[in-house]
Amino acid sequence: MRASWQERFAEASDVLKSSQRQQTVVRVLDLEIGGSDFITMAGPCSVETEQQILSIAAHVRKQGARVLRGGAFKPRSSPYAFQGLGLAGLKLLAKARSETGLAIVTEVMSEDDVPLVAEYADILQIGSRSMENYTLIEAAARSGKPILLKRGMMATVEDLMRSAQLAIGAGNPNVILCERGIRTFDNALRNTYDPAAIALLKQISHLPVIADPSHACGHRELVPALARIGVAAGADGMIVEVHPQPEKAWSDGEQSLSFDEFDGMMAMLEPYIALRGAANRTLVGRVG
Amino acid sequence: MRASWQERFAEASDVLKSSQRQQTVVRVLDLEIGGSDFITMAGPCSVETEQQILSIAAHVRKQGARVLRGGAFKPRSSPYAFQGLGLAGLKLLAKARSETGLAIVTEVMSEDDVPLVAEYADILQIGSRSMENYTLIEAAARSGKPILLKRGMMATVEDLMRSAQLAIGAGNPNVILCERGIRTFDNALRNTYDPAAIALLKQISHLPVIADPSHACGHRELVPALARIGVAAGADGMIVEVHPQPEKAWSDGEQSLSFDEFDGMMAMLEPYIALRGAANRTLVGRVG
Amino acid sequence: MRASWQERFAEASDVLKSSQRQQTVVRVLDLEIGGSDFITMAGPCSVETEQQILSIAAHVRKQGARVLRGGAFKPRSSPYAFQGLGLAGLKLLAKARSETGLAIVTEVMSEDDVPLVAEYADILQIGSRSMENYTLIEAAARSGKPILLKRGMMATVEDLMRSAQLAIGAGNPNVILCERGIRTFDNALRNTYDPAAIALLKQISHLPVIADPSHACGHRELVPALARIGVAAGADGMIVEVHPQPEKAWSDGEQSLSFDEFDGMMAMLEPYIALRGAANRTLVGRVG
Amino acid sequence: MRASWQERFAEASDVLKSSQRQQTVVRVLDLEIGGSDFITMAGPCSVETEQQILSIAAHVRKQGARVLRGGAFKPRSSPYAFQGLGLAGLKLLAKARSETGLAIVTEVMSEDDVPLVAEYADILQIGSRSMENYTLIEAAARSGKPILLKRGMMATVEDLMRSAQLAIGAGNPNVILCERGIRTFDNALRNTYDPAAIALLKQISHLPVIADPSHACGHRELVPALARIGVAAGADGMIVEVHPQPEKAWSDGEQSLSFDEFDGMMAMLEPYIALRGAANRTLVGRVG
Repeated sequence: MRASWQERFAEASDVLKSSQRQQTVVRVLDLEIGGSDFITMAGPCSVETEQQILSIAAHVRKQGARVLRGGAFKPRSSPYAFQGLGLAGLKLLAKARSETGLAIVTEVMSEDDVPLVAEYADILQIGSRSMENYTLIEAAARSGKPILLKRGMMATVEDLMRSAQLAIGAGNPNVILCERGIRTFDNALRNTYDPAAIALLKQISHLPVIADPSHACGHRELVPALARIGVAAGADGMIVEVHPQPEKAWSDGEQSLSFDEFDGMMAMLEPYIALRGAANRTLVGRVG
Repeated sequence: MRASWQERFAEASDVLKSSQRQQTVVRVLDLEIGGSDFITMAGPCSVETEQQILSIAAHVRKQGARVLRGGAFKPRSSPYAFQGLGLAGLKLLAKARSETGLAIVTEVMSEDDVPLVAEYADILQIGSRSMENYTLIEAAARSGKPILLKRGMMATVEDLMRSAQLAIGAGNPNVILCERGIRTFDNALRNTYDPAAIALLKQISHLPVIADPSHACGHRELVPALARIGVAAGADGMIVEVHPQPEKAWSDGEQSLSFDEFDGMMAMLEPYIALRGAANRTLVGRVG
Repeated sequence: MRASWQERFAEASDVLKSSQRQQTVVRVLDLEIGGSDFITMAGPCSVETEQQILSIAAHVRKQGARVLRGGAFKPRSSPYAFQGLGLAGLKLLAKARSETGLAIVTEVMSEDDVPLVAEYADILQIGSRSMENYTLIEAAARSGKPILLKRGMMATVEDLMRSAQLAIGAGNPNVILCERGIRTFDNALRNTYDPAAIALLKQISHLPVIADPSHACGHRELVPALARIGVAAGADGMIVEVHPQPEKAWSDGEQSLSFDEFDGMMAMLEPYIALRGAANRTLVGRVG
Repeated sequence: MRASWQERFAEASDVLKSSQRQQTVVRVLDLEIGGSDFITMAGPCSVETEQQILSIAAHVRKQGARVLRGGAFKPRSSPYAFQGLGLAGLKLLAKARSETGLAIVTEVMSEDDVPLVAEYADILQIGSRSMENYTLIEAAARSGKPILLKRGMMATVEDLMRSAQLAIGAGNPNVILCERGIRTFDNALRNTYDPAAIALLKQISHLPVIADPSHACGHRELVPALARIGVAAGADGMIVEVHPQPEKAWSDGEQSLSFDEFDGMMAMLEPYIALRGAANRTLVGRVG
């Protein structure tokens, strides 16, 4: 079996486990992503105001999140959607970090913005729409900051691994993979969540893998179940959208959790997260 | 939100939760499917020999399975694949039931076979390739036996609910839905497993829902992780392929668990199954 | 290259061209399908009334159609859609044949109905939803009547060829393949029309291939363009829905052509059909 | 019907036909794209050497092509594929233009490269992988050069129109749309060609639309049939890969036509192109 995955994914060989490398741990501030802790990244879709981002940061920190997410440069789902606050948004994120100690993850959409975003963020997010923007991935990788690489909506697992390979090839081994749902014929939910990809990647790759239950379903009331599925799939963490007033969010409100919903989810997940380490150890079978 | 799902799935309204009906419990022998217990259905892809089916039945029973699966009439993945033992296979399944007390689930592929299969089986399986064979579904439903309705590889959640509606309309409320992976552009695994469909169905439908981790991935070593994902998604049970010598199975060997692998999986799942009831109760948000 | 297609589609080897068999010509009444003529099959989605089917038959005959289509047993897109007139519909089709000389193609949905449908129809249609109903395909094939095998909405070209192989294996070489659109992530039109599959099948298979522009798009105003694409793809014919008052049709009205639209389409297609034979001869490259 | 398409594609309203604008004609050197002539763009996947590009340019010019394609900055299908000659490639394209009079279309992959590519090229290509790179599209649009916008492998028709809307919104009305195949569950060919999208776009949009038969199928021997389908779909032109020695091409050799194959295709297409204008005028039905 070992030979088979190695052969199938030969173009992404640096992403696969090897005798030298079984697990990459990405260090960010005092955090270890890909280590023993399950890391929750939470925050709004977009940074909107100082009051908004600081109140969210304080709340999610209290509930156990370790990384603050929030878009300053927004990947618009359409040309007319909100494009983000830009530099002002980055500064607000930095302020939230200094107040809470949370690490910051935010998207970079243009190679020209890499130096600016890398100055403020602790992790550079490559969004779904950019997963095959190789120029951007290489520029982001060369910044030296850890990369959060989101799977494209119609990217195969192999495509995702090849993009990760490119970042590693540019000299940056600190790549975190993220499953966030793919496009299929079914439209019951926003996307089709693919946690088997998480389970597969955890078996064959040494890179940390996280789940994005918010984008995967697009319906707030299913986010906790999808987060639980992500934990059960073996993810090293998750990234989730939270907003004090989801119905008033400037973007993605229908998939953002309220504070109460976030708190309920975190409490519900606790025993699953506790089981996670043990479960990983009892997996039958081993893939190369 | 209630209005929205009701409107979207209006053609399957009898499948949706209502003030009258929050949860259907399907009774089979002494079992309750859709009740508080997580029900494991296990067995070979195909019934091969008396020795094979009896040894599997005894083993999975000991490990906690409550239903024996096994194909007598086989849905061939190609015209030249093994087609099953037919009546002889049904008789072997009945013998396994009388020796172990396990209920029997087996597929019926042709409306002409419904009376015969219904004479031997406790649950009639409608396979993926038959999910839109309305004539067959109605014939099976009229037999009075509970129906295990597998989602088609190319069926939306709505398509699945409409086929269930048809069985209910034919006078048979005892329908168990089964998620088993869908066809997408990705070919990393055999199918793309869709546990968010399980979570969605558990929120909006009163019917029991089970997971099929074997067909969803097609790789033995990932079956336990996919089973765990199914539990976390809120499934009422699972159906899984087991074979004493997977490498010698007449069909689907690459996705069948050996006895040891099955035992390891059942032990690993135990604490997740214990959490399942509690988790269902703490879900934030409620869908109509 | 020859080796490659032969290898890839080895499970459908009887469907592939060989030194013995370059082209199958299916003979129906006085027609040759797969020969030099482009064969138009036209008629309503469902047989509704005597007046309806006779008027349509007379009209499409006058415009050059050679086969009358019309559903007597209907593949319902949902459990509550119109299910067809059954035997009464078959008798009306037979009456239309005796009045016009048109051959009759109609769907058979249940193996139990095969003898009845075969008594009245000249060609038995296996619908999209039945393309993997192997029991039905074999029963239909054994009737001795030519088979019109429609591609399933999520069937690969290989799946289609394997179903055809099954009919040939049951002793019936007279199989006509039909491309009618597949399910994809795009929902701009009803389905995604795949004429490259027609071009591919014409190069590698000896079976006749026809196009169904009506189901492929689901929008009446695009049917003529899709029919023209089918001719250009090298199809041996087409099957198209026509209704005297599409807006009043009992089913599929939005994709049925009015008489005027059908006439306009047939006139527009004429020079393309004239070019068809010549074009086939100048194809560069040859596939095995 | 008019209301329906307008409503469905409201976010791309500037791309739709209106009473003010029925057809955009893009002028490039002495060419009109979107006018009465069918425009053939041909050339190698990648510019390799002076001898290669000059010989191809001379050959395709003689056979009726009006635009020379050729990659200088290459969108790699994997991180390790050939990345193109860069500036040296642009200079060779310019030399080919001065020798043949052919206009030049070449891809720009990075916003930083826009000024450079715009200095040499007559049409800036936005590749499939960049179709949702809004930053790049806006930068390319602001250069003032016409844009050839290729549909993403995973983009709906609506997504394509929204990207075109963005270019128009950036002040550049000269956008040419290009259908090149999408990703689906079928892998018989490289992609699933979607000429119904061409027919739909020609009915609802005023922008020119061209077909890319080379990328759509990935098999040289099917390119002529797919080109013919594109003409029949109503395309305003096509873009096709040609190489003097396809088996020695540095990239995409398996889908490149040899000179002889290109000549055969152009001769075969001639009568279809002649019919094209007339066919457009006799379409039954009209969409808003």
